[in-house]
Amino acid sequence: MNVNVTRDNVFFAFNADLKPVIRVQQGQEVVMETNDCFEGQLRTSADLLDKLDWDHVNPATGPVYIEGAKPGDILRVDILDMQVGEQSIMVTLPGEGALGDMISEMETVILKVKDKEVFYKGSVHVPQKPMVGVIGVAPENGSVPTGTPGKHGGNMDCSLVTKGASLFFTVGVEGALFGAGDFHAAMGDGEVVICGAETPGRLTFTASVVNEMEGLPTPFISNEDVVATVYSAPTLDEAASGAVHAMAQFLTDFVKLPVNDAGMLMSLSGELKFCQIVDPEKTVRFEFPKFILEQLGYSCKNL
Amino acid sequence: MNVNVTRDNVFFAFNADLKPVIRVQQGQEVVMETNDCFEGQLRTSADLLDKLDWDHVNPATGPVYIEGAKPGDILRVDILDMQVGEQSIMVTLPGEGALGDMISEMETVILKVKDKEVFYKGSVHVPQKPMVGVIGVAPENGSVPTGTPGKHGGNMDCSLVTKGASLFFTVGVEGALFGAGDFHAAMGDGEVVICGAETPGRLTFTASVVNEMEGLPTPFISNEDVVATVYSAPTLDEAASGAVHAMAQFLTDFVKLPVNDAGMLMSLSGELKFCQIVDPEKTVRFEFPKFILEQLGYSCKNL
Repeated sequence: MNVNVTRDNVFFAFNADLKPVIRVQQGQEVVMETNDCFEGQLRTSADLLDKLDWDHVNPATGPVYIEGAKPGDILRVDILDMQVGEQSIMVTLPGEGALGDMISEMETVILKVKDKEVFYKGSVHVPQKPMVGVIGVAPENGSVPTGTPGKHGGNMDCSLVTKGASLFFTVGVEGALFGAGDFHAAMGDGEVVICGAETPGRLTFTASVVNEMEGLPTPFISNEDVVATVYSAPTLDEAASGAVHAMAQFLTDFVKLPVNDAGMLMSLSGELKFCQIVDPEKTVRFEFPKFILEQLGYSCKNL
Repeated sequence: MNVNVTRDNVFFAFNADLKPVIRVQQGQEVVMETNDCFEGQLRTSADLLDKLDWDHVNPATGPVYIEGAKPGDILRVDILDMQVGEQSIMVTLPGEGALGDMISEMETVILKVKDKEVFYKGSVHVPQKPMVGVIGVAPENGSVPTGTPGKHGGNMDCSLVTKGASLFFTVGVEGALFGAGDFHAAMGDGEVVICGAETPGRLTFTASVVNEMEGLPTPFISNEDVVATVYSAPTLDEAASGAVHAMAQFLTDFVKLPVNDAGMLMSLSGELKFCQIVDPEKTVRFEFPKFILEQLGYSCKNL
């Protein structure tokens, strides 16, 4: 397979000053290699986190300049395919993650990925659930480390971000400056110990500006079953409120529902879900079923 | 069907002073009728919340005295069946719920429940997902309104609580004093507008003390697929941390996993989920797959 962007092209903060690795046309298929979140520094179970160079954590591959993408545009990124490596890594670090107070020893575990399963130590094997941890565009202002999630995307660790999903970002700078990395062969919602099955990978995507979607609350995700708003904030209460309000805004502004109907249908059949609770900001999403949008006569043609 | 406890037997706070409606043997099948969360006060869309008597909200049916249940025992409640009514209700109330700041008008919507679907106004119909909102036992100390969740159970609004689930509570007082109510014909995780499809119903259950489970972090839930810890707290960050720590305690104390393995497997394949974010305390659960417990050689015979 032709790779357009190799995994040696990494950056560690989303910002306007990044130099594009490649310029692509809207709709052009792009294949990008990615590193695991440790940039390959941990290779065996003897490699503990104390040897890690923390300046090389959560690398994103890119950035990719999307021709014609302008600040304020809504950029749609379709994930056509994603592949993970044959080996993945999990770690513990005392004091870190949601169980940091209970964890007293560093440990690194190598997990084999084979036949659509992920193998943990001796007896445990779980289904592969490939997902992209870091994905986003440069923000209009400032610089956001790739380990942090936000309005620009970034380290959302959202399990919806996988093959078949479409992501929507508000373009912050000319060309959008898109990047992605930090794949997981599997990860449960919450990512509670601080990692999923961390793995290098390969992403195949197209990106293009969508019309008539100005004002969409981004990051926004769509797949076969649901649309979802994603919100990151220092506390889970703020993140949950943000995701809920973003979906209510979508349902009132775009689907044109009265706010009472939006709220009641969200309460009846929408789902508030955790993405991760262990990054510098916590990430929550709100999923709303597409079948209800269809029942309401809303066309999902742009989603 | 023989009903053991009719829906006129209600209480509004879980506490040791409740007078039992019925005394049952451990393992004896019990059928209980329940009221909707408004105790039937709202009957048409013209009945808005301003006419509600708030002293009659979230009634639980019972309490049921379980013979032989003693303080400190772990009580297992098996939900053999649950039925919901043919009509359910949703409401909005300005200032309340996760969208309270956006909602300016009270509204009451009557939803028909038919053919395993719930019908909302004209065109929207969603699959029935019956669940029990309020379920619990009297706490050892104090009195907890039935609208509030806590260590004793109560208004957890947890969508796992349905037919086929087993719930585990730590008995606080002689006879446990079990009660339940506040059924929903459907509700999305989060219950964001402040209600699900509120409905009266009928619960069929057995209750018995389980041995060798002392110290289980309760409330605890088990179904065909997962075990789950449930935790309620004033903030979502505290509730999430509580649910995560409770599952880590179960996996280390009962499954005998080293804490690093517990944490990594939780992060790999466990799921942190919202129950509700709109009650006086917020409720979060952590689900862990039973198939991993089996791979680890842990017998779920008591779960």
